[in-house]
Amino acid sequence: MRTPGELGTRAEAMLAELAALTDGDGNLTRLYLSPAHRAAADHVATWMRAAGLDVGFDALGTVRGRAMPTAPGRAGNKRLLIGSHIDTVVNAGRHDGMLGVVAGILAVEEIKARGIQLPFGVDVLAFGDEEGVRFPTTLVSSSAVAGCLVPSDLDARDADGVVLRDALVAFGGDPEAVTSAAYAREETLAYLEVHIEQGPVLEAAGLPIGIVTSIAGQSRFSITVMGEAGHAGTVPMALRRDALAATAEMMLSIEDVARAGNAHQMVATVGRLAAKPGAVNVIPAEVVFTLDIRADADAPRLAAIAELETRFRAVAARRGVTVTMEKFYESPTTPCAPRLQEAFVGAARDLNLGERRLASGAGHDGHAMHHLTDVGMLFVRCRSGISHNPAEFATIDDMGLAVEALIKAVERLAADAASSGDRI
Amino acid sequence: MRTPGELGTRAEAMLAELAALTDGDGNLTRLYLSPAHRAAADHVATWMRAAGLDVGFDALGTVRGRAMPTAPGRAGNKRLLIGSHIDTVVNAGRHDGMLGVVAGILAVEEIKARGIQLPFGVDVLAFGDEEGVRFPTTLVSSSAVAGCLVPSDLDARDADGVVLRDALVAFGGDPEAVTSAAYAREETLAYLEVHIEQGPVLEAAGLPIGIVTSIAGQSRFSITVMGEAGHAGTVPMALRRDALAATAEMMLSIEDVARAGNAHQMVATVGRLAAKPGAVNVIPAEVVFTLDIRADADAPRLAAIAELETRFRAVAARRGVTVTMEKFYESPTTPCAPRLQEAFVGAARDLNLGERRLASGAGHDGHAMHHLTDVGMLFVRCRSGISHNPAEFATIDDMGLAVEALIKAVERLAADAASSGDRI
Repeated sequence: MRTPGELGTRAEAMLAELAALTDGDGNLTRLYLSPAHRAAADHVATWMRAAGLDVGFDALGTVRGRAMPTAPGRAGNKRLLIGSHIDTVVNAGRHDGMLGVVAGILAVEEIKARGIQLPFGVDVLAFGDEEGVRFPTTLVSSSAVAGCLVPSDLDARDADGVVLRDALVAFGGDPEAVTSAAYAREETLAYLEVHIEQGPVLEAAGLPIGIVTSIAGQSRFSITVMGEAGHAGTVPMALRRDALAATAEMMLSIEDVARAGNAHQMVATVGRLAAKPGAVNVIPAEVVFTLDIRADADAPRLAAIAELETRFRAVAARRGVTVTMEKFYESPTTPCAPRLQEAFVGAARDLNLGERRLASGAGHDGHAMHHLTDVGMLFVRCRSGISHNPAEFATIDDMGLAVEALIKAVERLAADAASSGDRI
Repeated sequence: MRTPGELGTRAEAMLAELAALTDGDGNLTRLYLSPAHRAAADHVATWMRAAGLDVGFDALGTVRGRAMPTAPGRAGNKRLLIGSHIDTVVNAGRHDGMLGVVAGILAVEEIKARGIQLPFGVDVLAFGDEEGVRFPTTLVSSSAVAGCLVPSDLDARDADGVVLRDALVAFGGDPEAVTSAAYAREETLAYLEVHIEQGPVLEAAGLPIGIVTSIAGQSRFSITVMGEAGHAGTVPMALRRDALAATAEMMLSIEDVARAGNAHQMVATVGRLAAKPGAVNVIPAEVVFTLDIRADADAPRLAAIAELETRFRAVAARRGVTVTMEKFYESPTTPCAPRLQEAFVGAARDLNLGERRLASGAGHDGHAMHHLTDVGMLFVRCRSGISHNPAEFATIDDMGLAVEALIKAVERLAADAASSGDRI
């Protein structure tokens, strides 16, 4: 039986091995269906086999390591899925995604080593397409597992014109067998994922792990404010219809509304802004800016958008400008199942750790997996909230505690299965 | 004796003739020392001669039409200067600058026609370089007249690499005789200029003319706000150091401070803004924006800048960002002489017009002429405040009233000269 520190040390070593498998030159870049993805998938398969799992690749390239049930019970035909992804962004860190795959393998290995009996099977999954960098689509591999893949996604082309379908064949996958990758709902118990937080909340709270309440839904808008250009010297303040000054007021409304949604972990960001004509001595006539707004549930996010629309119109009316909002992206909230949150909370309690719950502001494979089964996620503290960057970092201790918490959560699910007659 | 309506009609006809003299293809573009400038200068000279003036070109290409004193008095060796400029921006309107030259010629013509005796001479001046479009310098011609030309300005090059000095020789000027263009202070009584407002104040007030109190001083800054980039989904509002949100607050401070300076006709503009990295889902780490601030006097403008600096620092400290202000341009306020303002106010009263006083937010030749003598300016209402645009427009009635007001103001200066023993 390994201590959390030993599990963390092993996780660190495995992440270092994976990080060496890259398409990049001197950095970690591993896009879906690339040679580095193939090498990483094979490497993961090797670890899985060493852990005694029955290993296979599904039609979309997802690595699947199966452990059979070891205890009797009516959940014997069910499978607990544990996973994450092994693709990366360009010039990535080594934890995002990979930690969840490594944690799954270590947990299964350790459950076996400790002689813990489970009345359900466990499948560890290593997805290949979570970042959505290579093709203009994302979550293709987890969507196939969840049975919700949009067939036209296979026709997507990368920047070199390579069609996803053809890249999949070259990888060793089978675009004609996509439906075979899907699990049946009745055989699936739940999906669990360990992931670095990619934000600063746990670090600020001084906690190694946190329990995810939902994967935040998000809406993105392009907002256009039209005013009137004018000479910066000759138009008095009271006679201006300054599109940028109006935008400044709208931006503060956005902050204000997002802060008021703190209980729903609301965040709102203006990331891009362009003012025209853009001359030092001309009053701006037109501003286009983006709004990205997220919350832990759909209702508060949609209410905040409605509130912002009202406020924008009031600002525009008062200032004699016009405002139009165009939504160009929306994804609904993925709630994490309360019973799975409780399993992680119990695990944290077992380890004498705080029970911090938080929403995930970033997207994850769980967003697709929710179409198939209940989703539970455990976040691991990362330094300064930095991710998608070589500076991405989680400590050995924190990673070890996360693996231990995952083991304890699986034990709790097994106990629940026993006490509820497998109706978990 | 012509009525204001007749004077306005004549002014309109003269502006139309000048507007035909262009370097542009289908639009009015007349840059300093260009063929169109030469043609316009010759055309102005023809009008001046017809008005009985003694005409010459100075070394910088300024057209000068001289009328001798017609009444006895100790001011007999003094000259009242009336003028404006005949260069334009690219794709210009026909009133900016030209109206002041035309008004000067018509006023002198009409003073003669009415038999009004003046104890001082009048020189009508048509400057050639007010817009500063062709060369990276401006007010060269009025600076030469005022004796404050910076010699190195003659070495400026246009976009084609032509040196101003050479362009001047080609025009017929004489770069070696620059000092000869300067008037002596003791021979100069004052400088008067009629100009369209280029702003919406007189239109909003329902008045055809306004008396300028000063040519606003201005300062321009490049302001950099440095925060921290972050994931738009994972960094809670309370942990952000958003450079753009901080900028929004600073922009509203700018509006606030400018509005509070309303008594000093303060205006402040953020015309240019760039936020980096500029992605929809990334919290902005850096914003660079410009500030252009103007007022009718230097002290309130400088106090407002100090106030803004204090407010910016407070915003930055509260939000955990940094702010730096770099001044890249400053020009001091040019006050209009009270006695000349009173002459125009008296003229407006004579015509039963309102006595609206206002600062000029835009720059003018008077800024250079102030180095030589007292400056007085009369503004003419223009439609919607539009200038530097083919849509620039002033009515015949308003232009006629402006010429009449100029005549009345000159009469008042003559009366002042008589009553004060020429100590005006």
